[in-house]
Amino acid sequence: MKKILLLGAGRSASVLIEYLLDHAPKENWEVAIGDVHVNHLSNAVHLSSYSRPFVFNVHDQTQREREVSQADVVISMLPALFHPVVAQTCLALGKHLVTASYVPPEIKAMHEAAQAKGITFLMECGLDPGIDHMSAMQIIHRIQQEGGEITCFKSFTGGLVAPESDNNPWHYKFSWNPRNVVLAGQGTAKFIENGTYKYIPYPKLYQRTESFLVDGFGYFDGYANRDSMSYREPYGLQNIPTMLRGTLRRPGYCQAWQVLVQLGLTDDSYQLEDASQMTYRELVESFLPAAATGNDQSLQDRVADYVGLPADADALNLVKWTGLFDEIPIGLKQATPAQALEHLLVQKWKLSPGDKDMIVMLHQFSYTLKGQEKQLSASLVVLGDDEVHTAMAKTVGLPIGIATKLLLQGKLTQRGVVVPLQADLYTPVLAELKDLGIDFVERETDMAF
Amino acid sequence: MKKILLLGAGRSASVLIEYLLDHAPKENWEVAIGDVHVNHLSNAVHLSSYSRPFVFNVHDQTQREREVSQADVVISMLPALFHPVVAQTCLALGKHLVTASYVPPEIKAMHEAAQAKGITFLMECGLDPGIDHMSAMQIIHRIQQEGGEITCFKSFTGGLVAPESDNNPWHYKFSWNPRNVVLAGQGTAKFIENGTYKYIPYPKLYQRTESFLVDGFGYFDGYANRDSMSYREPYGLQNIPTMLRGTLRRPGYCQAWQVLVQLGLTDDSYQLEDASQMTYRELVESFLPAAATGNDQSLQDRVADYVGLPADADALNLVKWTGLFDEIPIGLKQATPAQALEHLLVQKWKLSPGDKDMIVMLHQFSYTLKGQEKQLSASLVVLGDDEVHTAMAKTVGLPIGIATKLLLQGKLTQRGVVVPLQADLYTPVLAELKDLGIDFVERETDMAF
Repeated sequence: MKKILLLGAGRSASVLIEYLLDHAPKENWEVAIGDVHVNHLSNAVHLSSYSRPFVFNVHDQTQREREVSQADVVISMLPALFHPVVAQTCLALGKHLVTASYVPPEIKAMHEAAQAKGITFLMECGLDPGIDHMSAMQIIHRIQQEGGEITCFKSFTGGLVAPESDNNPWHYKFSWNPRNVVLAGQGTAKFIENGTYKYIPYPKLYQRTESFLVDGFGYFDGYANRDSMSYREPYGLQNIPTMLRGTLRRPGYCQAWQVLVQLGLTDDSYQLEDASQMTYRELVESFLPAAATGNDQSLQDRVADYVGLPADADALNLVKWTGLFDEIPIGLKQATPAQALEHLLVQKWKLSPGDKDMIVMLHQFSYTLKGQEKQLSASLVVLGDDEVHTAMAKTVGLPIGIATKLLLQGKLTQRGVVVPLQADLYTPVLAELKDLGIDFVERETDMAF
Repeated sequence: MKKILLLGAGRSASVLIEYLLDHAPKENWEVAIGDVHVNHLSNAVHLSSYSRPFVFNVHDQTQREREVSQADVVISMLPALFHPVVAQTCLALGKHLVTASYVPPEIKAMHEAAQAKGITFLMECGLDPGIDHMSAMQIIHRIQQEGGEITCFKSFTGGLVAPESDNNPWHYKFSWNPRNVVLAGQGTAKFIENGTYKYIPYPKLYQRTESFLVDGFGYFDGYANRDSMSYREPYGLQNIPTMLRGTLRRPGYCQAWQVLVQLGLTDDSYQLEDASQMTYRELVESFLPAAATGNDQSLQDRVADYVGLPADADALNLVKWTGLFDEIPIGLKQATPAQALEHLLVQKWKLSPGDKDMIVMLHQFSYTLKGQEKQLSASLVVLGDDEVHTAMAKTVGLPIGIATKLLLQGKLTQRGVVVPLQADLYTPVLAELKDLGIDFVERETDMAF
């Protein structure tokens, strides 16, 4: 009997829980499932003889240590800020840990101690980070083993809404933490292009997009993520001339979001004065120069002038659709501009009952093989089945479930803090994902010069 | 015999030191002058029987306590970050303190303890903050005492170059900390205009200027400073519909600086990759989208396109003048974009031998008096005499010197942490400044409706 402790059982854990309980009989697992609330878990989970749901408080050290001490492996689907404290407990008690989050500095610092204890902290094992690493590394290693030299690698992921549920002009609904979507891109994006370091400050980010076509799913716009350069070394691409990681949105989104950025609506650094007395229309007004006396332009036209767009630009119609130009009370006691914006958008970009989400991932490579320039693209599209089995829950949960199985089967031998970049991990994980319908489509072309 | 301890004797302290030594015989003062170096002080200072220059290390607690314990009042012209530690020593030893800097939270927290000890921490007593507060409060109190109600108050200050020394297209040279000039405006400017709160995010700040004419000195552009709203309460203008504080530059400067901001050259949040291998031209290139194949536009034209200006816009010629488009090595081992930019500009915007600087301060009021709408403006222009007696050194040093004299004469009775907003301070300080040639010109007009 192997014991799995899953901490955090929110919406995005649904598919993972099913995977674990499906495999429990054959693998001889017991799955303890701890969360602040467990009432939302399905009857199947509550009734399964392989599951033990319990109310869990991450701040309760006694409970945390008791539960971790009984486990063979801990999976944390808690908010990322709790991972260091969970990792500390796992380290003290010598237990494996699996998460879908980036390695924070506190956990990076535990690498040697975890190695010494013979345990594995498998991080970045969800979708992005996770499937992105694994699918990219499989292709990179294959090209390199054939003797190819990679000159360009661009990789983009988007959590979007499925075409059949796409009924708003932004072609977007929230399938992930809304706050992160509102704040996305703040800071400076860094990448390398034709051997030149490139920096895009946040105020220009959403206007510097690149367009991609995915067969059967149409066009997407990609914008750059924070620090693409830091991936060169872990990916074994130290000298690559072009490397860029980014996020996908449907065409139109980025241009309209750029309007919100330029106005200042995504700023999370200060509290608005009297937010509770303010409407969204007044909020927009507070970011504009006062109208000149006798100026009878509409608010939308003044915004257009301010951001340098024609008054009938699509971007402005998308902004108008959100309700930002309307006398809708913000309705929050206190709010930063970003919090006020998020509060409006969670109502407008809500996945309704029956809506399906969509994950799109796209890798593009250029490489030289035997003197020939080649291009290879790999794309993944995953659609949600329903509101529980979302594409997000599948693509985040399944790699974690599969990796946990491999770890318990003794098939993963890397110890310490591990990110899924090696074949012993990505080969079996990607193979099983393929069996589960999560499969990349590759296209290779020779380039004429 | 009263003992004054002056800590910090850099360039901006020159006029203050002369003021203190000039008044020392009549006032029966001894002036101890401590700085990291004292060799740069003039012979007059070294030879004066009223001065005692000494090498001072702010981190040496023993020396700090010994010197402060011997003083009746301490003046700190040290960098602002050292004021809390100096204030702590003054508080422990029961000594008055005078500075030209904003009240930091650590010193604000000492207010009641300082009151209990019967000592005065007189802060914000230089130019800006300092003369701005005093001159504004004198007018505000006068209007209010006449029964007027102030509806609009805008106040701007600029540290600039005198017209006779103005020989570059930016019409600007550094007369103050260059780093602060490069980073100026980061964050969000907040003010109130016609009863509406207004927020200007940094990327829009330098394009939202207002133009002012100062008799005999031509036009200036003003841009908003950080938080104008926080001054409503201390100024007794809680319900004022329009209040804005800002910074003055010559026309052209802000539009050109806006280009640098949009590119990302004022970003101080990350280190450039390989700065030591980079030229300024390459730095600009790193902020631009790669040129399309076959695009033979000049770098200047590509920048123009990127920021949405015509290729021959004045702003671009100002940027070109800095050398940013040239193959000049950055020549720093490590640098943020802002540090690289500062390193270039300190060479280009240096006050040369013989150059004179200029301070301009401008207040604009609208108010209602007996049913009439009135406007009043007050402007101050101070020119430097030479490289030692700069306008900056005069306007920062003289109010400190005068206030210190008043404090030692027992004419200031406010205790605790004090900012010069009350008549007992501003009346004698402004009167003596006027005698010294630092004098506002007022203009009043009735407005027709």
